[in-house]
Amino acid sequence: MSRAPFHRVAVLGIGLIGSSLARVMRTRGLAEEIIGFDGAEAVRERSVALGLCDRLTDSPADAVAGADLVMLCLPVGANATVAEAMAPRLAPGCIVSDVGSVKLSVIRDVGPCLPEGVHFVPGHPIAGTEHSGPDAGFADLFENRYVILTPPPGSDGEAVARVKSLWEDCGAMVESMDAAHHDKVLAVTSHLPHLIAYTIVGTAFDLEASERQEVIRYSAGGFRDFTRIAGSDPVMWRDVFLNNREAVLEMLQRFSEDLTALQRAIRWGEGDTLEDLFRRTREIRRGVIEMRQAGTFDAREPDNPAPEDEPSQ
Amino acid sequence: MSRAPFHRVAVLGIGLIGSSLARVMRTRGLAEEIIGFDGAEAVRERSVALGLCDRLTDSPADAVAGADLVMLCLPVGANATVAEAMAPRLAPGCIVSDVGSVKLSVIRDVGPCLPEGVHFVPGHPIAGTEHSGPDAGFADLFENRYVILTPPPGSDGEAVARVKSLWEDCGAMVESMDAAHHDKVLAVTSHLPHLIAYTIVGTAFDLEASERQEVIRYSAGGFRDFTRIAGSDPVMWRDVFLNNREAVLEMLQRFSEDLTALQRAIRWGEGDTLEDLFRRTREIRRGVIEMRQAGTFDAREPDNPAPEDEPSQ
Repeated sequence: MSRAPFHRVAVLGIGLIGSSLARVMRTRGLAEEIIGFDGAEAVRERSVALGLCDRLTDSPADAVAGADLVMLCLPVGANATVAEAMAPRLAPGCIVSDVGSVKLSVIRDVGPCLPEGVHFVPGHPIAGTEHSGPDAGFADLFENRYVILTPPPGSDGEAVARVKSLWEDCGAMVESMDAAHHDKVLAVTSHLPHLIAYTIVGTAFDLEASERQEVIRYSAGGFRDFTRIAGSDPVMWRDVFLNNREAVLEMLQRFSEDLTALQRAIRWGEGDTLEDLFRRTREIRRGVIEMRQAGTFDAREPDNPAPEDEPSQ
Repeated sequence: MSRAPFHRVAVLGIGLIGSSLARVMRTRGLAEEIIGFDGAEAVRERSVALGLCDRLTDSPADAVAGADLVMLCLPVGANATVAEAMAPRLAPGCIVSDVGSVKLSVIRDVGPCLPEGVHFVPGHPIAGTEHSGPDAGFADLFENRYVILTPPPGSDGEAVARVKSLWEDCGAMVESMDAAHHDKVLAVTSHLPHLIAYTIVGTAFDLEASERQEVIRYSAGGFRDFTRIAGSDPVMWRDVFLNNREAVLEMLQRFSEDLTALQRAIRWGEGDTLEDLFRRTREIRRGVIEMRQAGTFDAREPDNPAPEDEPSQ
């Protein structure tokens, strides 16, 4: 394109997502200038070495000055502090968006900090890998992946449209939904699976050392899938669970009830109960496969990772 | 090789594993003759169409007559009946082995049926996909995969050695361990992961239809890995849980306690508890990755499936 859709983009948090966004914006000419902020000096140094941004700073306010787009790519628990710090320097007409896995909390934490005339468009790219940090990102992370936008009622239509087309320029498919609904759906599709994976890997970790070694050795039986998911960034996931508490606890409660019913069926040898469930779950699997055949399949999807890079989030 | 290591091999149960075994024995000349048994007429017809065996029969006794190796490739719950039926026709010196995911129950169900002079070598290839039936098998399913043999005390050394080298000829790495220990390790690495995956997919299935559709659409967040595992054969897994009850219930109890602790940490906002666990689990992940770098990596492993064929068991 002759002119980049954004003049100056501030990327706050240069982790897996932030660095991937910087890379794809650079590769596809989506921003004339990219300013990066990260609180960790080591991350800033790596970002400079990798040439991810035109300039790196340790000050959110400094990063957002003169930006027409600010992308919050931090663990959701860090949004409030950073939003407060950057707010005074946000230019009128600037768009503030984010990539967090929880949307209600971002609206709660960031929304109130934003001055009049700044547009807030919360978003969530459903993309990632188990790896973290500026080295883990890659330009096509968002290719054929869904991005969910959750603009609050009364959001500026043009601002939403610009964020939507940015993600489309990154190769993503963009949907919109209510933030509360997003948080409930993601509690099932992402948050609960991660919590369970962390738990079972932790349960195995607590076995005596000799057994632990064999669990690792024979992990191909299904356990290995869980270890990949449980390799994801600890701080990011801690914040997800703390900030999507109600939805996660609600789904966790349902899961525990269902698991208890199966436990009982196993204890009392109720084979039909087990077989019935095991047949029902195939319907969901069919739906997932049909959806992929419908064209949303992507070589970096969690169930088809490249050996050296195994997506999980 | 000039002469096949086995003269006549009877494969009882032509599913994913049985048909894969028939294919690799055929491809690599490991048996002069392969006789197949399956209780389902449709499976026998497919097996004939696929040319998997030299002869198909609906009678276990007929299948094993004159065989020097009998491979039980049935859901573990079917072993007792089939073993009883085939026992009278087992030739002296014949080796009976199996591929079941539970070993104590096979020893309990099959051992007593076998006449004097017949050698019993229970085994378990840790290999598979979510797919079932004679069409799902492929000749390199066992390539670089572990096979665990659990010969009871006093087993015939030569018989064990012949089964070991058969699996090595199939490309597998063979280990031996006590049956009870096998069942405990597999309860963690395979049985509990499958039970949990079936449960969470079932929990999602019980959501209202509209939410269910979105769970499928946004399954890339981690849920999709679980749907793959939960796509495995219902009867096989029903039998696994019914026949490894004690070990599965024991691990399930530990898992539930750990999950309850996390639930409490989320409810009370104890971020450190969450982060500590999420960091600890990375050690196990490192072990898994190191093991794979040590050379046991296989392109068909559960965490690196080909898009059209996604291993899970």
